[in-house]
Amino acid sequence: MNSFGRHFRFTTFGESHGVAIGVVIDGIPAGVPIDIALIQAELDKRKPGQSDYTTQRKESDTVQILSGVWQGVSTGSPLAMMIPNEDAHSQDYEQMAKVYRPSHADFTYETKYGIRDYRGGGRSSARETACRVAVGAIAKVMLEHHGIEVYAWVQQVGSIASKCSNEELDFSRIEETPIRCPDIPVALEMMAEIDKVREAGDTVGGIVSFMAKGVPVGLGSPIYGKLQADIGAAMLGINAVKGFQYGSGFESVELRGSELNDMFINTDGRTHTRTNNSGGIQGGISNGEDIYGKVAFKPVATIMQSQNTVDSTGNSTVLVAKGRHDACVLPRAVPIVSAMLAVVLIDHLLLNKLSKWQ
Amino acid sequence: MNSFGRHFRFTTFGESHGVAIGVVIDGIPAGVPIDIALIQAELDKRKPGQSDYTTQRKESDTVQILSGVWQGVSTGSPLAMMIPNEDAHSQDYEQMAKVYRPSHADFTYETKYGIRDYRGGGRSSARETACRVAVGAIAKVMLEHHGIEVYAWVQQVGSIASKCSNEELDFSRIEETPIRCPDIPVALEMMAEIDKVREAGDTVGGIVSFMAKGVPVGLGSPIYGKLQADIGAAMLGINAVKGFQYGSGFESVELRGSELNDMFINTDGRTHTRTNNSGGIQGGISNGEDIYGKVAFKPVATIMQSQNTVDSTGNSTVLVAKGRHDACVLPRAVPIVSAMLAVVLIDHLLLNKLSKWQ
Amino acid sequence: MNSFGRHFRFTTFGESHGVAIGVVIDGIPAGVPIDIALIQAELDKRKPGQSDYTTQRKESDTVQILSGVWQGVSTGSPLAMMIPNEDAHSQDYEQMAKVYRPSHADFTYETKYGIRDYRGGGRSSARETACRVAVGAIAKVMLEHHGIEVYAWVQQVGSIASKCSNEELDFSRIEETPIRCPDIPVALEMMAEIDKVREAGDTVGGIVSFMAKGVPVGLGSPIYGKLQADIGAAMLGINAVKGFQYGSGFESVELRGSELNDMFINTDGRTHTRTNNSGGIQGGISNGEDIYGKVAFKPVATIMQSQNTVDSTGNSTVLVAKGRHDACVLPRAVPIVSAMLAVVLIDHLLLNKLSKWQ
Amino acid sequence: MNSFGRHFRFTTFGESHGVAIGVVIDGIPAGVPIDIALIQAELDKRKPGQSDYTTQRKESDTVQILSGVWQGVSTGSPLAMMIPNEDAHSQDYEQMAKVYRPSHADFTYETKYGIRDYRGGGRSSARETACRVAVGAIAKVMLEHHGIEVYAWVQQVGSIASKCSNEELDFSRIEETPIRCPDIPVALEMMAEIDKVREAGDTVGGIVSFMAKGVPVGLGSPIYGKLQADIGAAMLGINAVKGFQYGSGFESVELRGSELNDMFINTDGRTHTRTNNSGGIQGGISNGEDIYGKVAFKPVATIMQSQNTVDSTGNSTVLVAKGRHDACVLPRAVPIVSAMLAVVLIDHLLLNKLSKWQ
Repeated sequence: MNSFGRHFRFTTFGESHGVAIGVVIDGIPAGVPIDIALIQAELDKRKPGQSDYTTQRKESDTVQILSGVWQGVSTGSPLAMMIPNEDAHSQDYEQMAKVYRPSHADFTYETKYGIRDYRGGGRSSARETACRVAVGAIAKVMLEHHGIEVYAWVQQVGSIASKCSNEELDFSRIEETPIRCPDIPVALEMMAEIDKVREAGDTVGGIVSFMAKGVPVGLGSPIYGKLQADIGAAMLGINAVKGFQYGSGFESVELRGSELNDMFINTDGRTHTRTNNSGGIQGGISNGEDIYGKVAFKPVATIMQSQNTVDSTGNSTVLVAKGRHDACVLPRAVPIVSAMLAVVLIDHLLLNKLSKWQ
Repeated sequence: MNSFGRHFRFTTFGESHGVAIGVVIDGIPAGVPIDIALIQAELDKRKPGQSDYTTQRKESDTVQILSGVWQGVSTGSPLAMMIPNEDAHSQDYEQMAKVYRPSHADFTYETKYGIRDYRGGGRSSARETACRVAVGAIAKVMLEHHGIEVYAWVQQVGSIASKCSNEELDFSRIEETPIRCPDIPVALEMMAEIDKVREAGDTVGGIVSFMAKGVPVGLGSPIYGKLQADIGAAMLGINAVKGFQYGSGFESVELRGSELNDMFINTDGRTHTRTNNSGGIQGGISNGEDIYGKVAFKPVATIMQSQNTVDSTGNSTVLVAKGRHDACVLPRAVPIVSAMLAVVLIDHLLLNKLSKWQ
Repeated sequence: MNSFGRHFRFTTFGESHGVAIGVVIDGIPAGVPIDIALIQAELDKRKPGQSDYTTQRKESDTVQILSGVWQGVSTGSPLAMMIPNEDAHSQDYEQMAKVYRPSHADFTYETKYGIRDYRGGGRSSARETACRVAVGAIAKVMLEHHGIEVYAWVQQVGSIASKCSNEELDFSRIEETPIRCPDIPVALEMMAEIDKVREAGDTVGGIVSFMAKGVPVGLGSPIYGKLQADIGAAMLGINAVKGFQYGSGFESVELRGSELNDMFINTDGRTHTRTNNSGGIQGGISNGEDIYGKVAFKPVATIMQSQNTVDSTGNSTVLVAKGRHDACVLPRAVPIVSAMLAVVLIDHLLLNKLSKWQ
Repeated sequence: MNSFGRHFRFTTFGESHGVAIGVVIDGIPAGVPIDIALIQAELDKRKPGQSDYTTQRKESDTVQILSGVWQGVSTGSPLAMMIPNEDAHSQDYEQMAKVYRPSHADFTYETKYGIRDYRGGGRSSARETACRVAVGAIAKVMLEHHGIEVYAWVQQVGSIASKCSNEELDFSRIEETPIRCPDIPVALEMMAEIDKVREAGDTVGGIVSFMAKGVPVGLGSPIYGKLQADIGAAMLGINAVKGFQYGSGFESVELRGSELNDMFINTDGRTHTRTNNSGGIQGGISNGEDIYGKVAFKPVATIMQSQNTVDSTGNSTVLVAKGRHDACVLPRAVPIVSAMLAVVLIDHLLLNKLSKWQ
């Protein structure tokens, strides 16, 4: 189950410390402009070591295109990309060979498969998400061509949250701080919080918000390809994600129908809704309003404190993490969230061409 | 996109006021005991008119098995079930032919498809979920055979929420009240709240919680078939669902890694976790602990108050709902949530047989 | 694996003597005109008892539409159809409960599934192909709208074969005889041959040829959705089919490249090929020329002679068939072959809309 | 549509003269022994330049494993392999940029996609089949573990055909000649024939036969995953294949049912058939007998003679092929046919584990 998407469908491969990670996109139409510099730029937003607020591991994450591009555009054939893994100190991970790290995938992978590539978490490493970012970069170019823009930003780190509504935020400021929260005063608070957490050898979670603007009416395929279900599955497949909501989400619970319903109005010759509690989706299909929602990330499991655990023979042991790890992955999760949103939207944009006969 | 599942895969068909709704299950192994009375019993938990707390529309929702069963067990061939629609007063819906009901799917379906079966919401009606309940009934029998039990219950209605932890709840009491909240004093409060909302001609949302006990280690298929992503997609495809979380969910955000990590321990010769903030899933794969989470439902869109809207020609109009509708769908959503949880689990239980070679 | 197709995808259900057989089409665009009389007319070409040259069993095969059609056109929702089974004399089949009919699926189904609905062959009965014919009727309407016509006809029965080239045949004469061979003198010979075979209590096979005219350039999806591979799989899934070829097929083997290559020419401002040994497909993609090929059917396995076999306990026994069966299924296979050709073509016609970006 | 398989599913990428070709296998169970030398050995059977009877182009086709293998066995994660393309003289292909080669895919790709990587045929090149051979090498190891052996051999070249029955052939002699026909006297004739064809600057087709021995009862998934349909699609997706048959195939047409039916017998406590006209498959499911069939290859389209054609602007032109090409691809097709047979069988072997409940 290493593929994602319905028509625009990609398959990823690779482990954290293997030869390479990579991805094959099938179902990409011919003629899409492919600019490797754009793809690399998106990858650079996810890569480790980009600021003081991410892990100081240095990995260049340099992407290569292996196939499917000719004279600067896609050919309709599979577009394969590869990111070679640099020479990693696999011996650093020898202790991981036998010990189950708490709240990591070591125990479940080993039980399920009977074998586990323990180097850096193997296949379960978040390094795989670089492939999603690379695919997302292509999807974003396609969406922009249709006037669709996707955004993601850090809404909350621990208990530090922006109180701004989506309308109050200036998305052009997302990249202004390494934390990727466009509410700059709050971003500064978040940075201080992360500093504090890191010093304590601990980790902290948060919320990444997302928005898509300019989405036409009609994307989404009822009943089991509803747009929110596909976006939700996309987000829930990202490492460390524990919750997802769209539109008014969990806040809907305490409101009455009379408060929450989005009244239709007609302006500029087009049917709109006066409010947008629906989050741009009704009956599983986009209604032309902004699509927005939230993704909850738990604090990463690797902490710089000793933890009690067991080894693969069932004996109790104490784990002390080595290396340099993120105290907060939220800033690096931003390009992953926007990438996954983009791939779901482009998939449904293509599929929607087949909804009507003639 | 009217199919759900990977190997155990079902496809539904039918509109609210068409000839029938139905479902075809493909990938069901041969030899599963099929008891139509059990299936009907689950459907009766979802059907309208079952108590004062659901719509008073009367639909018997009688299921028929069309194929795939022989001598009381499945044959490995497609198992088709059909629920005929009873003679509906379609003329009641003529006004819906041209008017877009706020926060319903009328506008999006009509724009996407250029045509819309407006009778009772057509394909977008929650009536389709009866098919999921019927499939879930079969999945539950299969799970029970493996010692897996699935539960769902109403956790919250509007602002009335049970404060009990999952461990404190007695699931045998779920069916004790029509509201399906096993915390009986809170259930009584919820009933009063729904009465109040109904009298106001309004509607109210809430939270359905779910739990699966006895799940073996190993279910779930990284990277894009993670157990939480498949469960999440299953829940987000249910009408009126706006949010999903599992394990510590959105609450994870404000906790530190050191607080949230689930320490491994070895008891009874088996590796466990001391806490279960992971919600029984690590790296997308079940770890043997209880799987649990929450599903947020918005208040249903049909309210007994006049609402401003537009018609299909763009003119403003006022909608006044007719007929008898649910003031709160949460009690009827309970069997749908448990059904969808069951189908995801049985699908992955089957797939997991293919994880190891020999 | 009871579904066929990629985007235009249908799932069939039902056994020969169960409650009903049926089919659900998913991925049909909205707005396709659906005329149940046209569907029934195609089914009537497949049904038993239509002439002296098919089995004299009487089954009316009356199709009902259950969903997905509104005001005479498809709605984009699943289009379900059902053909109820009439009251069959299942007791006629009691002897089949324990005896494996030679060259039938009794032994393999029972071994694979551990249980077998033996009434009339259960799921393995060719009765299921009625569903394909019903779907094909809809696909043909869609194709005709694009100027694509599909044909199938009986080319050979036993050793009686039409010597006409495809160009010499007048397809409007296919339905002129019950045998569905447009070469009328040969059709008469075939009828005499079938009479002779039936009198001997035996059965005879043959070849059904097919052709599609007016197919645009571009249908087919390399590498693993090549048009010939999808058509081939469609044909090889029909009961009693043992071989498939397209274009020059097996005859290519003895020719040289210099004899077989189709030279390109330009006429009427369009690129054509002077010959069409490619059968209208190059590199897995239609090239605008006629698509044609042949499907080999073995004689049906049920013969009116006693046969040695074993029962499910391994004991030798003698089988004597009862009832009335086809001495030659070729005439009834014609609408199945054209239906399967049509569904493959419409599937790829839809998919081809996604090949180019802008 | 660059993926093949249902559970054991692989996706290929790459063009003839791009950076690399490669393949990702998803659904391979954990614990399969992976020996890169075995994979390379199979690839060497397909590579150009291996004997006087294949093209003299030199390509080393050296495979690298990128992921999914740890400590010599598969991990259950995607197994990716890559074959870098060596520095090709792409300028040799500049004339192909504008000219449509007869009976090649140039015209159809360019029309379908609007762009075409013309270097060496791009994606439509048979070079892609190396990926299938690599996957097949792994599938064969898995099958052998279950006592299943797959064979393919050259049955016919032009009009030179082995008259031996499958039982008379000694498969251990397949690799004895470069032609891969185990009937050695006939192999020598074939070699002479190919010499003659090559000298004439022409090409010749032929038939590759295949057989699988030791297949258990139960592989294959009715109705639309019948074993013969999946094998047929596998073969029809190979470059230059024009026809497929299994069991008695097209020869069935002229036989009576009474001659063709395979009588069941019981020997060694097991139900067998006395004859095997069914080709080891009944009702789409393997019956335990040998699976066998034939695949018809046309002569390759590239001939060393001048041919009339048109260019992309519609003007007539004359094409004279350059470079060194195969006069007969049959010997190199043998490992491709056996590979595709192997992948279909392993896929169904895995799926068959899910046929019965308990």
